[in-house]
Amino acid sequence: MLPSFFQEKDPFAPIKYGYEVEEVICQRQTRHQELLIFKSPYFGRVLALNGVVQLTERDEYFYHEMLAQVALHAHPSPADVLIIGGGDGGALREVLKHKVVKGALVVELDEEVIEACKEFFPTLSAGFADPRTQVLEREGADFLAQTKERFDLIIVDSTDPVGPAESLFTSQCFIHAFSALKAEGMFVAQTESLHFHREFVRQVQHRLAQVFNLVDLYTVPLATYAGNWWTFSITSKAHNPREVLRKCEVFTRYYTEDVHRHAFLPPSLYQELLSDKIAP
Amino acid sequence: MLPSFFQEKDPFAPIKYGYEVEEVICQRQTRHQELLIFKSPYFGRVLALNGVVQLTERDEYFYHEMLAQVALHAHPSPADVLIIGGGDGGALREVLKHKVVKGALVVELDEEVIEACKEFFPTLSAGFADPRTQVLEREGADFLAQTKERFDLIIVDSTDPVGPAESLFTSQCFIHAFSALKAEGMFVAQTESLHFHREFVRQVQHRLAQVFNLVDLYTVPLATYAGNWWTFSITSKAHNPREVLRKCEVFTRYYTEDVHRHAFLPPSLYQELLSDKIAP
Repeated sequence: MLPSFFQEKDPFAPIKYGYEVEEVICQRQTRHQELLIFKSPYFGRVLALNGVVQLTERDEYFYHEMLAQVALHAHPSPADVLIIGGGDGGALREVLKHKVVKGALVVELDEEVIEACKEFFPTLSAGFADPRTQVLEREGADFLAQTKERFDLIIVDSTDPVGPAESLFTSQCFIHAFSALKAEGMFVAQTESLHFHREFVRQVQHRLAQVFNLVDLYTVPLATYAGNWWTFSITSKAHNPREVLRKCEVFTRYYTEDVHRHAFLPPSLYQELLSDKIAP
Repeated sequence: MLPSFFQEKDPFAPIKYGYEVEEVICQRQTRHQELLIFKSPYFGRVLALNGVVQLTERDEYFYHEMLAQVALHAHPSPADVLIIGGGDGGALREVLKHKVVKGALVVELDEEVIEACKEFFPTLSAGFADPRTQVLEREGADFLAQTKERFDLIIVDSTDPVGPAESLFTSQCFIHAFSALKAEGMFVAQTESLHFHREFVRQVQHRLAQVFNLVDLYTVPLATYAGNWWTFSITSKAHNPREVLRKCEVFTRYYTEDVHRHAFLPPSLYQELLSDKIAP
């Protein structure tokens, strides 16, 4: 029997997931966090930061496609894209599938994550070699507060909102994100699980609604994030994110136009989930 | 720090879930399986059989409502209902919410599960005291093969399809279920996770399609079953299970008519998931 890696340190999940470990590939303390890459018989290579699994080779596409492709297809022309976090390159890979994208700026707090992913997840992180890509090692909320650049799309691909990532979900940060968007801009962020973090989802939706006209929520069932039923909060200055404006012409494994539309909850369920009716 | 209960014995899940244990409430070896009930700070009371969590007080309603209410609302008049398994009483509770139900027969392999749930999950299992309820301690596939009774609705609420529950998913068993249904009868079974058991879901759907005209699949994201993205395979002799035939007039926490319709995947996604395109 193989040894197991249990996410006992995950502060944000009431279930601790355990993975079989075939081989530890990389284990190091970066300037910001504990980085672990191991091989699991079922999931392939797995990346964990501070003891919490961030991605597995087997199922990362569910998360990365849904994080990026919905806004990429709801925006009429996403030329300039900002990714906050996303040091593994998964969101970047999805963004760069679109020829309409002229520039993708990755603002990642921890460049050592990027370096490790270039080495151990070469397919996932191939986008870092694309000439359209720029990388900035910097804290995301801080960057948003100060940048003079304007983007068509901002994607927040953060770790759990405890510790460094907490600053990405404040009202102040959302105001700065609004300012950093062009007139038809969109903003999307991973916002945790409707099962385990519903109160957090509510708070984020409430804060976003104070800044953006159009705020919505879509979900995808994920296998490897505790609580699954993962949410993405999406906001927009002009276009309804439920609508597919650009026909899907890129290769995806899970995302389709039908998936796009179905990922948004029926309005009644959306309202109920964010009310107290079925809480907790 | 509390001790943890890890599902290390789960033979059907590549992730082992771990729960904090505040108190062990009941631990016994029944004639058929190892039964454990413990209290977890987040989930309340938790029932595990053979080391695999079957339900938690906190989130069982997602599973039980979706298992039972879809068919109960798609059938024009579900008077006679058969539940196979379901010894905890959760599916029975949902069935008995409907006044149109005249009789509910629970065929459960292990009466000691029923007894333990009556004692330690009194709300969940209250339906066993309802005069419409009958209980038979018997192996479900065996009962279906021999019964002369005819039902409007058959609900299979089994453990994972390894060991005793395996016999409930054979073609032979589906043929017997078909025979045990009235002319407008429906059949619904929990059929595991689209993430972790997609091949099993495919097999079951294929076998059902050889017996029933109308075969469909719906899902719910569950927090406490490994792989979440839980599937229910539903079949019908006459009515399309996607359609809500009877207005929802019972109290539910998650199920609504919108949830009913949304739980069914868009046809293109359903086809893709059961093809090889995005496997595994």
